[in-house]
Amino acid sequence: MTDDPRETAGGSPEGVSRRGLLGILGAGAAGLAIGGGAGAGIAAAVAGAQPRPGAQTYPFFGEHQSGITTPVQDRLHFAAFDLASSATRDDLRSLLEDWSAAAARLVRGLDVTEEGAVGGPLVAPPDDTGEALDLPASGLTLTFGFGPGLFDDRFGLADRRPAELEPLPRFSGDALVPAQGGGDLCIQACADDPQVAVHAIRNLSRIAFGRAALRWSQLGFGRTSSTSTDQVTARNLMGFKDGTANLKAEDPDTAAAVWVAEGDDPGAAWLAGGSFLVVRKIRMLIESWDRAQLQEQERVIGRDKGEGAPLSGGTEFTPIDLTGTGPSGAPLVDEAAHVRLAHPDTNGGAKLLRRGYNYVDGNDELGRLDAGLFFIAYQRSPAQFITVQSRLASDALNEYIKHVGSAIFAVPPGAREGGFVGEGLFA
Amino acid sequence: MTDDPRETAGGSPEGVSRRGLLGILGAGAAGLAIGGGAGAGIAAAVAGAQPRPGAQTYPFFGEHQSGITTPVQDRLHFAAFDLASSATRDDLRSLLEDWSAAAARLVRGLDVTEEGAVGGPLVAPPDDTGEALDLPASGLTLTFGFGPGLFDDRFGLADRRPAELEPLPRFSGDALVPAQGGGDLCIQACADDPQVAVHAIRNLSRIAFGRAALRWSQLGFGRTSSTSTDQVTARNLMGFKDGTANLKAEDPDTAAAVWVAEGDDPGAAWLAGGSFLVVRKIRMLIESWDRAQLQEQERVIGRDKGEGAPLSGGTEFTPIDLTGTGPSGAPLVDEAAHVRLAHPDTNGGAKLLRRGYNYVDGNDELGRLDAGLFFIAYQRSPAQFITVQSRLASDALNEYIKHVGSAIFAVPPGAREGGFVGEGLFA
Repeated sequence: MTDDPRETAGGSPEGVSRRGLLGILGAGAAGLAIGGGAGAGIAAAVAGAQPRPGAQTYPFFGEHQSGITTPVQDRLHFAAFDLASSATRDDLRSLLEDWSAAAARLVRGLDVTEEGAVGGPLVAPPDDTGEALDLPASGLTLTFGFGPGLFDDRFGLADRRPAELEPLPRFSGDALVPAQGGGDLCIQACADDPQVAVHAIRNLSRIAFGRAALRWSQLGFGRTSSTSTDQVTARNLMGFKDGTANLKAEDPDTAAAVWVAEGDDPGAAWLAGGSFLVVRKIRMLIESWDRAQLQEQERVIGRDKGEGAPLSGGTEFTPIDLTGTGPSGAPLVDEAAHVRLAHPDTNGGAKLLRRGYNYVDGNDELGRLDAGLFFIAYQRSPAQFITVQSRLASDALNEYIKHVGSAIFAVPPGAREGGFVGEGLFA
Repeated sequence: MTDDPRETAGGSPEGVSRRGLLGILGAGAAGLAIGGGAGAGIAAAVAGAQPRPGAQTYPFFGEHQSGITTPVQDRLHFAAFDLASSATRDDLRSLLEDWSAAAARLVRGLDVTEEGAVGGPLVAPPDDTGEALDLPASGLTLTFGFGPGLFDDRFGLADRRPAELEPLPRFSGDALVPAQGGGDLCIQACADDPQVAVHAIRNLSRIAFGRAALRWSQLGFGRTSSTSTDQVTARNLMGFKDGTANLKAEDPDTAAAVWVAEGDDPGAAWLAGGSFLVVRKIRMLIESWDRAQLQEQERVIGRDKGEGAPLSGGTEFTPIDLTGTGPSGAPLVDEAAHVRLAHPDTNGGAKLLRRGYNYVDGNDELGRLDAGLFFIAYQRSPAQFITVQSRLASDALNEYIKHVGSAIFAVPPGAREGGFVGEGLFA
């Protein structure tokens, strides 16, 4: 026992105090406190009918996982994990169960357990690390995926492996750093507050202790690809609007381009309603780019820098005319322009749902910003990404970027209420 | 010349188009576009009487630099620079002039020059990198400082060196990485949008090309020290409220604790109205902390984790009673508790104005989050920091942290309209 005056004043019968409620009541009219389970109702009552900033929530359970066609949030913490060498099939299953239980609470703005950061015994480490105690859900989504390695001979899952879940081929210009790619499992945490995203990854990492460990992780900001027609197109660190032509949740084509359908892969029926996720850490050679003429930058991208309109004319959302030529007969959109080579018409109709983020990881020893785009794309089949990325071998943009990280994951469908993400793997 | 249809349609007499205005008009009623100088008025007119999110601005010119007692913004990009080996006194002066001219525009939500990202010639690199073209000022402040090295024999400034501007002494527990500390010059960019802060540091780095280069830089989020009584206390990555007892702009003591007064240092009269800035990158040993009992965490900090109240009783803002004891006679606030050792009463009244940020730099090769607190403190004299940090040699918190980066800077007063930051150095 301690000399803690709160315990002498009114400890619980077990001699440990449960102070989640006390702490929340103490926060008073600010109405920002959502901590343990008891806190949610109180905070809601305090806040009354006025939605608080950051009050947006997305469901964890459902047909599909959230965080894919969800309107892309402002901040990212992406994490890849490797299972421990000692991990068993039961460990994997229990980890997915535990992650799901925690995730279902976290996306509601709650701590990972009911005891949470401050509601448990004084003489035990808290269940939750606490840095999000006063923060609302902030639109948090947690999206889980399975890397190819999960289907080797360790967990008896080889016969559940999606036929297309193979490590990506080598692409022209790859300069991959192994430590910045791959992984048995991944979690994409997106939120409108970076502290909420970081809190989620940290606590899920902690839950994994002994079963899986962080392999690599990446923070990002300034969503570069709108996934809803309600969103303004943001700019990447080349200064161009990025994602103008992205698939949007509202597009009638999106479902067929993103979700694995029943029957796509009879050997991996568990993946129906899921998707394939490709991530690529693309470092920008910022200094070279910044020294390029505006005309060269626009030629490389194929759009105007200010408005984001295609060089074939019009405004931002005008469809690109890949056939138009200028007075000299040269194409208005260069043969090597990024928008031409990435365009569905150049790729047999292949479309990706992108939801990438800008990143800055400080600077390198030469004083250059270590910055670029953390590319994230969801698609029904990895072939969609492979087709486009192969076409980009002749992309004029390649002079100004290098791909330093890469990973692929099969993203299972959403968990059912009372179930857990990836449950179908074990059926 | 190109086949760009916009040029054949209506190029300017020089054969180059100036499209800043066009791009802004094209953005229409969204009212988000602030690009070149012409854009500000238009965007304001579009926005009308409704303040846009992120519309907050702080002045660049004035008695003191902004970014010190300014209510602390949500995001940080801090950068330290070394002058080039070839740099002359004139280079230093011109750099400060150029930085000031750009900063005065950036804090208003403008590009670094009037031509900016898209308003210049097509056949030249744009003046501005463009990633903040559509973003409002977002409360951006840019605060400039001078490291001890600036006053060596390179620039004829040795006789202007503030007597107290010395490299910090070695403190107990320092585990400093030279590449993460020091620097001839620094810029603290704070804003409510990380892309705005990053854009500022990137473009100021670009302006420095050939005269100074980035030495190290740090991104941060989740302001851990309120600097205004209007702000809710945020939490650090240990899950505790941080900055409850921080000096606030509204406190009557703050001016005397932060600003260098006339006569403080007759040999460096240029510094009057300025301050001394200390930054410390403090890595948290997250996994050890997370395994500590709640009781131990609270003992180490000296406050309760939920509410942030001192263990001597009360609520968050109750003054700490350092003398109170419990039934066993032991002090309620441990002898080694962080709040005791950092308290002004333990340090001869020394107070600091903190405005630190949480950071996460991914993870290390052992799968541990590389995370902690980027500590920033402003004070009238470095002795204030040195006193407190020396006292923290016996801090119970030291078991869970290590200081990996450190730097000190003299922060000049604000620039006068038409002048530049640090102008007094050259008087």
